[in-house]
Amino acid sequence: MHPFDTATLLETLPDDRFRGHTSPAYANMVGPFGGVTAACLLQAPMQHTARLGDPIALTVNFAAALADGEFVITARPVRTNRSTQHWSMELVQGGDVAASASAVFAVRRETWSAPEAAPPSNLPGPGTLARSPLAGRPAWTRRYDMRFTRGPMPEPFDEQQQPDSVSELWVRDDPPRPLDFPALASLCDSFFPRIFVRRRKVVPIGTVSLTTYFHADAALLRAQADRHVLGVARAVNFRNGYFDQSAEVWSDAGPQLLASSHQVVYYRE
Amino acid sequence: MHPFDTATLLETLPDDRFRGHTSPAYANMVGPFGGVTAACLLQAPMQHTARLGDPIALTVNFAAALADGEFVITARPVRTNRSTQHWSMELVQGGDVAASASAVFAVRRETWSAPEAAPPSNLPGPGTLARSPLAGRPAWTRRYDMRFTRGPMPEPFDEQQQPDSVSELWVRDDPPRPLDFPALASLCDSFFPRIFVRRRKVVPIGTVSLTTYFHADAALLRAQADRHVLGVARAVNFRNGYFDQSAEVWSDAGPQLLASSHQVVYYRE
Repeated sequence: MHPFDTATLLETLPDDRFRGHTSPAYANMVGPFGGVTAACLLQAPMQHTARLGDPIALTVNFAAALADGEFVITARPVRTNRSTQHWSMELVQGGDVAASASAVFAVRRETWSAPEAAPPSNLPGPGTLARSPLAGRPAWTRRYDMRFTRGPMPEPFDEQQQPDSVSELWVRDDPPRPLDFPALASLCDSFFPRIFVRRRKVVPIGTVSLTTYFHADAALLRAQADRHVLGVARAVNFRNGYFDQSAEVWSDAGPQLLASSHQVVYYRE
Repeated sequence: MHPFDTATLLETLPDDRFRGHTSPAYANMVGPFGGVTAACLLQAPMQHTARLGDPIALTVNFAAALADGEFVITARPVRTNRSTQHWSMELVQGGDVAASASAVFAVRRETWSAPEAAPPSNLPGPGTLARSPLAGRPAWTRRYDMRFTRGPMPEPFDEQQQPDSVSELWVRDDPPRPLDFPALASLCDSFFPRIFVRRRKVVPIGTVSLTTYFHADAALLRAQADRHVLGVARAVNFRNGYFDQSAEVWSDAGPQLLASSHQVVYYRE
């Protein structure tokens, strides 16, 4: 079984509840990597018997650091329309809410479509680039094969402040795994906190809210299979303890936008 | 009383509940303008007795079109930490959930701060620009004084597709009103659906999820007072029935980023 499937495995319980367990393969500095927590919160409506369509939007609010161990997710279909469905989720650990989330699912139909944002062009392919070093990094970073063309994790953290925090990289699961919605939700949180790239300094941080919009449908994800996707991440603004960052995830063919993602992050100092 | 205050007036009921009423001054094509609904959903935790700090993040999921008339919002503090507080909200009308929402509040402290996104520079001031025409537009557009320097609402809708959907404009409440968090939350939804700008064509649309990050604290909002703010909006991607758009709202002095906002919108055709 792929470590991601182990980490997002949910046992269906009665009354819209699902039991999961944190996974050492995706451990972060403290508790699990937030991307996998987001994936678990999406997985609950994905495997709920009332599910309609595929995910369009997911918002996860991280209310507290998860402890390693068991958790229970409640996933409640708040409203089901003809082609859309709204979900509300909560992750409880030790009697307290550690994360809350919401999702919109929809049945899509073919319409006029067009990109507006564009990916960087003429990047060297992932096969020609070295993999980002892993020494001294938390376990979850080993589960992503990252090959940067711009804005890698600073090595060393020399506190030489940069003019921007833009990163561009090829990234996929390690071991390779066909992309699906939970894996894409998790990957959208794999872009390092922009403050590390901008300041080349490690400060205490924690994502407080993460929103991902899914542009890919299931067919587009199947076509992507397990090949590297192109990620672009940048900060928007840093101010008095909170900054936000945005990311785009592009297919390698086309390229087509698979997801766009935004998060607001607490920082100290 | 300012029409915005009338439209966002909530009567506190027992058990974390608040009663509000849609307002003809902010009527949209069908039901109320979504920005004011978002503001009402933020207003509930703002006036809740358990409130800690100021808003950092707000996500609103529009599950159904609101009908004109009364509604009840439930605002529940999901988790309160030392300096952050997580909220979950639901807006119910006629026994059904019409919108769900979440918010993160926080007590900020002064830290290293820096912009990364930048506003357009050398724009003519609002006093030198004509106000956007209102004829034939829904009532809520009269409640915003909009002065475009780029990407206005197409006039006429001639279906000449544009290369992008970027808008830049000065905007403030009409009549002028000192900016506060609910007004900023509402203003972040005042950028027309990007598909109208891009395609110069009216198609049926509806925002399904809206996320706003507040970079301003109360002091910065007080300093902005009732002067025009600078808004920049653009689409990210349009695909098979859903597109997303992002906006930034800048102060006129500095300028400083007051809020960044993202939404995913359903469209037909």
